[in-house]
Amino acid sequence: MTCRMITAKHLSVGCRRLLSTSSYTVRSHTCGELNASNKKEKVSVMGWLSHKRMDRFFVLRDAYGSVQATIPENSELRRLLKDLPYESIVRVDGVVVDRGENRNIVMKTGDIEIGVEKLTVLNKAVSNLPLLPDVNANERTRLKYRYIDLRSDKLQKSLRIRSEFVHNLRKFLVEKSGFVDVETPTLFRHTPGGATEFVVPAPSPNHGMAYSLPQSPQQFKQLLMVGAIDRYFQIARCYRDEGSKGDRQPEFTQVDVEMSFTTQEGVMQLIEDMILAAWPESLNHIKPKSPFPRISYSEAMTKYGIDKPDMRIPWEIEDVKSGIFDFLKKKDCENWRARVIVFRGTGKNAISNSMKNEWKRLIQMNENGRNFAICHPSQKSWFKSVDNQKIMDEFGLTEDDVLIVCWGESDGVYWTLGQLRNYVAEVCGLRSKSGVTAHWVVDFPLFSFEEGQLVSTHHPFTAPVEKDKEMLFESDNQKLLQITGQHYDLVMNGVEMGGGSIRIENSEIQRHVLKVLGEPTEEMEHLLNALSHGAPPHGGFALGLDRFVAMLTSDGNPLTPVRDVIAFPKTKNGKDLMSDAPTTLSQKQLQRYGITLRSDADS
Amino acid sequence: MTCRMITAKHLSVGCRRLLSTSSYTVRSHTCGELNASNKKEKVSVMGWLSHKRMDRFFVLRDAYGSVQATIPENSELRRLLKDLPYESIVRVDGVVVDRGENRNIVMKTGDIEIGVEKLTVLNKAVSNLPLLPDVNANERTRLKYRYIDLRSDKLQKSLRIRSEFVHNLRKFLVEKSGFVDVETPTLFRHTPGGATEFVVPAPSPNHGMAYSLPQSPQQFKQLLMVGAIDRYFQIARCYRDEGSKGDRQPEFTQVDVEMSFTTQEGVMQLIEDMILAAWPESLNHIKPKSPFPRISYSEAMTKYGIDKPDMRIPWEIEDVKSGIFDFLKKKDCENWRARVIVFRGTGKNAISNSMKNEWKRLIQMNENGRNFAICHPSQKSWFKSVDNQKIMDEFGLTEDDVLIVCWGESDGVYWTLGQLRNYVAEVCGLRSKSGVTAHWVVDFPLFSFEEGQLVSTHHPFTAPVEKDKEMLFESDNQKLLQITGQHYDLVMNGVEMGGGSIRIENSEIQRHVLKVLGEPTEEMEHLLNALSHGAPPHGGFALGLDRFVAMLTSDGNPLTPVRDVIAFPKTKNGKDLMSDAPTTLSQKQLQRYGITLRSDADS
Repeated sequence: MTCRMITAKHLSVGCRRLLSTSSYTVRSHTCGELNASNKKEKVSVMGWLSHKRMDRFFVLRDAYGSVQATIPENSELRRLLKDLPYESIVRVDGVVVDRGENRNIVMKTGDIEIGVEKLTVLNKAVSNLPLLPDVNANERTRLKYRYIDLRSDKLQKSLRIRSEFVHNLRKFLVEKSGFVDVETPTLFRHTPGGATEFVVPAPSPNHGMAYSLPQSPQQFKQLLMVGAIDRYFQIARCYRDEGSKGDRQPEFTQVDVEMSFTTQEGVMQLIEDMILAAWPESLNHIKPKSPFPRISYSEAMTKYGIDKPDMRIPWEIEDVKSGIFDFLKKKDCENWRARVIVFRGTGKNAISNSMKNEWKRLIQMNENGRNFAICHPSQKSWFKSVDNQKIMDEFGLTEDDVLIVCWGESDGVYWTLGQLRNYVAEVCGLRSKSGVTAHWVVDFPLFSFEEGQLVSTHHPFTAPVEKDKEMLFESDNQKLLQITGQHYDLVMNGVEMGGGSIRIENSEIQRHVLKVLGEPTEEMEHLLNALSHGAPPHGGFALGLDRFVAMLTSDGNPLTPVRDVIAFPKTKNGKDLMSDAPTTLSQKQLQRYGITLRSDADS
Repeated sequence: MTCRMITAKHLSVGCRRLLSTSSYTVRSHTCGELNASNKKEKVSVMGWLSHKRMDRFFVLRDAYGSVQATIPENSELRRLLKDLPYESIVRVDGVVVDRGENRNIVMKTGDIEIGVEKLTVLNKAVSNLPLLPDVNANERTRLKYRYIDLRSDKLQKSLRIRSEFVHNLRKFLVEKSGFVDVETPTLFRHTPGGATEFVVPAPSPNHGMAYSLPQSPQQFKQLLMVGAIDRYFQIARCYRDEGSKGDRQPEFTQVDVEMSFTTQEGVMQLIEDMILAAWPESLNHIKPKSPFPRISYSEAMTKYGIDKPDMRIPWEIEDVKSGIFDFLKKKDCENWRARVIVFRGTGKNAISNSMKNEWKRLIQMNENGRNFAICHPSQKSWFKSVDNQKIMDEFGLTEDDVLIVCWGESDGVYWTLGQLRNYVAEVCGLRSKSGVTAHWVVDFPLFSFEEGQLVSTHHPFTAPVEKDKEMLFESDNQKLLQITGQHYDLVMNGVEMGGGSIRIENSEIQRHVLKVLGEPTEEMEHLLNALSHGAPPHGGFALGLDRFVAMLTSDGNPLTPVRDVIAFPKTKNGKDLMSDAPTTLSQKQLQRYGITLRSDADS
């Protein structure tokens, strides 16, 4: 095989695509690019045998498409083709022929075919393939034979869109905005805040100690700001040990950005510009409009019952100003609310039995929002104390609408209605609608209360807004909970795609906040030290790349599994079905790290 | 603080630099960009206080340079400046003034200064700084306070050149050559071939098992070829547990490339084009010429005594055709050679006492190359059996030359002379000469013999050259050692910057090679399976990014430590002196992973 030596300098715009995907290879063209303009050309193409007919006609497929090849009627090559298993690797040398009347209008290359002169089997596949690309198979088989599944249209498209998005993003950051791509370590020290970091035992002379795989480069990016790398980014591998919780991988990737001498508005604008600049051209039809609207946390909670509302859903939680539902009030409930949501235009869809079951499930999850009633005109009397018509007039209900009223403790009421809103929208198909809406949620409380403890809403490095700084030194938890943080979340189609904050740059304030949170400061002395050795004001953002690309590649569906945009994903249980990782270790390995591993069977 | 909202679409070429590095921030300019054209402009700049004089004049420094600011003579601000520690973060609002006669011609911004109107201390530094940027300090202090050292010119330049090189490289691969950037997992299964992989114990339900951190994405990139991602690259984090061997980090980065339907020549051409296209413009003066010459392994060994010769060194190992040294021959030595190297133009430099000591050290390391003599005209009789003049005539020696003759077993002789060649060159300053030479070493033997065992010269996935394929099935080790592999190394200034090969795409041949090497095939079944399910011919390359950038940023010095191009490096012992990683683990963590860790003190 000789190789076409086409170097970058020979590429001209006109033939760029052709040259770029076949340069440095022995093929003359890719399967997908041949068309009538190649008529009579001698070509060499190679790929996977994906279809054959009458031992003469076959389709060759590569990453760029498919093309039909035809063996002359009396050729010996027919026998070769006959015995050749699908997915074998084949090289075809031949001449491009116009198919004339026989052209295949469904196939992109269907105007032509290759008249086979030479057929070379480069690597035979086994004949009992467990899976074929683009043919249905169960998830476990597809994961075990991932290298076959990767040939499917869907995964080819996903991985290529991911690459394109990331490249566009780098171009915006480096070329347009002067950011520096810096790699930070993944073998780091344990960071306080829960035992959710994987550990890596260290070899001698550090036996008895371990590195931790960081959940994000948070500390490093702040240290880079102190180190005058004032515009940093990294497409960073991160690790989170959360067992088999939800659609998450033990390792994931985030677009990590940090900048000095900036403001909350500055970072949000940068990220918005970055995402829009990087949006793949082929997906312009689902591109969100700029500017992304800003919603405050409290507005999100009272209108949508959730801090990451899906803005494609038209329904909002409504106040009941008229006091029409005051009769539902409980005397001993301090923070009592009655709120309604009207699912306009859903008709009886919204009160099917399956939906009622989901509602019952929701109520079980939330002891403070258990009281609610479903009001639909088809039903008789909704409440003993109020006339149906009065409620219908109050909210302008028609036969097509369903009204839900929920009452009880404030938080529970909003939560229940927010969950119902998402659920009804999903059933009605509103959440799988093509397109992406984007907005920022801002003005989060700096602290939250969880399981009787004060915790950071974002993380302990987030700065309060300027006017609330003094309140940090209050000892009353209720006061602390009123502090607003300089924290912003980017929400798309009801999913938090990323978040960021302006950080605390003052060492003493940072130490105080860690103490308020009950975090041990000894493990953070390196960061606290850095803040007192010349730390500029700074802030940043992290975008969840896997989740974001999963949404991009599925026309905006935020519920697409992330494994569809990861080349070699793991199962929920952290298994790699293809290679069977993780594995047991040899005595030699255990000795090297001075460890013993207890299997569940041992305990 | 309000923020300048300059988005990408407002950037024009003329003011690009200004806008790109200050967009999204609250500064109007960076310190380093102000000049006479800004005269009378109102500016806001912020940075580190790096110098002050007479409580009135001070220099503000940021990542882009320094600028002088001057406080009006009677201003209250003088007291503020007086008490302000160096490296504090300061904001200056003021007007750019021409310094006229007082201009500082050494300073890039020395034509102007800022007349201070407002001086704001954004974050005070401690007054007892352990380190100042660009001021000498010991290595441990610099690593402990890395965030201060990062402000130095040297590290700022290194990290920015690294970012630029990597970005250029991506542009070449993605935009010019159609490559796809794919991320591969770092939590993988153990790969056979030595216990040099860090392990990551898995949580329940996989207790008793562990992931391994891969040494390279080798298997994944081959699986991607099987998966029809036929042009893959990744800037990949890799892990190697080699304790404190040499200038290596436990985690490092490689530029990882793989391509289907290509040849050895195709991959080498791609990599050559890629490196030249990505070469930072500011370093054009050290750019190697294209094409990179090809040298065969055997030529490298016989001419330079090493498989990664530094081609800046003019001296070559010479054969002694005349038989002049035949009298040195030992009867019982099967593979006897006598070879000479003439260090022309070194004069007595080459035979100083320190050099003789190094030579003695080398001889101790190598039992087969211990016999050698140093011949310099200043010395009396070199050998009893040969007249000095005869040797001088044979090799054309002058007073300025030193001849070394070495005799004994072939391998040892070449090794000794190769090491001497490097050493003399280093002493004579030839190895620190500015500039980079690049060449390919090809035609390596597929197998080597190490400690009585057959091993892969490159790795077990490397294919033999076509004509030697049959020889793989020989049972005689001597025959196997004669097989040439399709393996190529890129050598720059005497350092192996990367290597690659055409891989074995046939499952049965791969299985056979693993058996020949005595590797357990059970742990490689996923790869062997993949090769029989439609695997195209493929090959690739990996470039050691840290080492490469270290050479780039030091004018071509291949011996520059890699920690100079890594933001947060570890010491030789695998310690992060800044954060004190690794650390001991809590009981909670140990329990989560079902592990116990034995410290050296315990054993």
